[in-house]
Amino acid sequence: MPKPKYHIIICTNTRPPGHPKPSCGAAGSPGLLMTFNMGLMERGYQPGEVLVTGSACLGPCEQGPTVVVYPDATWYSQVKEADVPAILDEHIGKGKPVEKLKPNSVWGG
Amino acid sequence: MPKPKYHIIICTNTRPPGHPKPSCGAAGSPGLLMTFNMGLMERGYQPGEVLVTGSACLGPCEQGPTVVVYPDATWYSQVKEADVPAILDEHIGKGKPVEKLKPNSVWGG
Repeated sequence: MPKPKYHIIICTNTRPPGHPKPSCGAAGSPGLLMTFNMGLMERGYQPGEVLVTGSACLGPCEQGPTVVVYPDATWYSQVKEADVPAILDEHIGKGKPVEKLKPNSVWGG
Repeated sequence: MPKPKYHIIICTNTRPPGHPKPSCGAAGSPGLLMTFNMGLMERGYQPGEVLVTGSACLGPCEQGPTVVVYPDATWYSQVKEADVPAILDEHIGKGKPVEKLKPNSVWGG
C-alpha cells in the first residue's frame, strides 16, 4: 500500500452529559467522519489513498468540530457536513486550503 | 497560541478481549502517549508547542504501536517507550527522522 496522500484528522472527543466544556463529538464530528469517508468513496479515491481518522481532543474545544488536514497542517474550525465537499474538492482534490472556511484562524492566522 | 510545530499522532485503538487482530492499545500505546508527553515536558517544551494526540485505528495493526509525526508524515512502527527519547531528540528536536527506527517502512519505503 502506498503512503496516504492526505490524512484528515477529525476530533471525535466527547464529554459526559452536563460537562461545562463543549466537545467536537457533541458538535457533530461522528457524522462528519462518515461524510468525509462517503465523499472520498463518491469521488473514486482508493481505500487508504486519503486516510480519515478520529482523534482524541485536539484542544480548541470551543471552536469545534476541529478537522486537521495533513501534511499541510491546515486546521479547520467549526466544520459542518456542508463544508465537506469544499474540503474534498478544493483541498484534497486541488491542494488548495479552502479560504472561505478561514483555515488556521484558530491560531490567529 | 501559536500553531504547533509538530503533531505526534499515536494510535490508541483497543479491541475486545479475544479479538483475533492485534491493536496498538494492547501493544502499549497508552504508556507511549504518557512517555511522549513526559519527555516533552522534561525537554522544556511549552504546552501546545508540540501536540501529542491519541487516535483511532490508523491501519497497520500488525505493526503497532503506530506513531505518526506531522507535518513530516513520518510513520513509525512497533514503537517502544525506549524509542521515545530518540524521536524527541532527533526528530522533534533536530528535524531528522530517526533512521534506526526504520521510518515509513510500513509503506515499503
